[in-house]
Amino acid sequence: MAGLVSIPKPTLERLPVYYRVLVQCREAGMQYVSSSELGRRSGFDNAQVRKDLNHIWSGGRPGLGYEIDKLTSCLADFLGLHNTTDAALVGAGRLGAALAGYQGFAGYGLNIVAVFDSDPEKIGGTLSERPILSVDKLADIAERLGIRMGIITVPAKAAQAVADTMVSAGVQAIWNFAPVCLQVPKNVLVRNEDLAAGLATLSYHLKELDPLTNAMS
Amino acid sequence: MAGLVSIPKPTLERLPVYYRVLVQCREAGMQYVSSSELGRRSGFDNAQVRKDLNHIWSGGRPGLGYEIDKLTSCLADFLGLHNTTDAALVGAGRLGAALAGYQGFAGYGLNIVAVFDSDPEKIGGTLSERPILSVDKLADIAERLGIRMGIITVPAKAAQAVADTMVSAGVQAIWNFAPVCLQVPKNVLVRNEDLAAGLATLSYHLKELDPLTNAMS
Repeated sequence: MAGLVSIPKPTLERLPVYYRVLVQCREAGMQYVSSSELGRRSGFDNAQVRKDLNHIWSGGRPGLGYEIDKLTSCLADFLGLHNTTDAALVGAGRLGAALAGYQGFAGYGLNIVAVFDSDPEKIGGTLSERPILSVDKLADIAERLGIRMGIITVPAKAAQAVADTMVSAGVQAIWNFAPVCLQVPKNVLVRNEDLAAGLATLSYHLKELDPLTNAMS
Repeated sequence: MAGLVSIPKPTLERLPVYYRVLVQCREAGMQYVSSSELGRRSGFDNAQVRKDLNHIWSGGRPGLGYEIDKLTSCLADFLGLHNTTDAALVGAGRLGAALAGYQGFAGYGLNIVAVFDSDPEKIGGTLSERPILSVDKLADIAERLGIRMGIITVPAKAAQAVADTMVSAGVQAIWNFAPVCLQVPKNVLVRNEDLAAGLATLSYHLKELDPLTNAMS
């Protein structure tokens, strides 16, 4: 079960950023990119970029930089983006609709095959052309379709129960947008997208910049 | 302009998580919480919690733990959550609608006062009861209202121009949902919510778990 390449988590989280920048470079018609240019466009420094990419790639050419086509493909392989991942989304609210309707995820291999909700008024309707099913059917359908990824966009109070159902049906990776820490077995990976935390770091920055607030502290 | 308390960025990003957990504890009727319980609910270890909270709080009582009311209030002050922040949101698509419609941000002091878009079919309409204005008016309105926070939910290609306009109008904190690295002056803080990166870390985990993929690598 262990991966072939052991890679630090912070590196793993930067690789998709490099991937996205490389795709943009390719679309702009570039063939090679230097580590410093890749760093500038990604927001990381030069040395960090080289160190990260050394984990998966030894093809940088002195003076020319990285060959964009090859590095992009290598990163996509490494990150598993070439594999299509079927996912179940639970929570057909506004955020669920935003995720289900976002075309860009297809480039990352994400295929939302089913949408679930507990609201009788929503069940039977559609969300971005996918039928909305009762959450009571989640376990059965996830198991039958072999779904390995779950996306949670329900309110905080409902999230743990949804996660438990997903795990019992064999889901191994959960993308959690509910503002709550999920308890899951060790072999299940949870990625929290904590929007409130993002907001709070910005509020803190604004408070720090405000001379009036600081004077009163 | 410098803050009174210097705090490491990773700590700053964990504080909102503690804050949220504390609010949930308070809603559940708890009065005190131990660092280990707070850690369990936040997903961080005991020692980490104590070290982080030591930056802003010296009121933990041996045997009793943290007094939830006081610590919550202290965290909210520290993070600037008691200040109301007026924000401009640019990009009235699905994600913009999800953010504009999310009630939970009010608890973090966020007040989206204006929504902008470039699509003539959207301009003049509303998004979660806010009028959608032409993005041409962004600079003028942001400046006149003294808006300090901008939220970007436009496609990647349009994001830098929107950020430039925000910065020129005095915006000091940008919450960026466009999958692109924005170039801004040093005094402006950008928080990237990189959904594709989150997705890629999950794909990688699933690939690593898959014995067939590993055998073929």
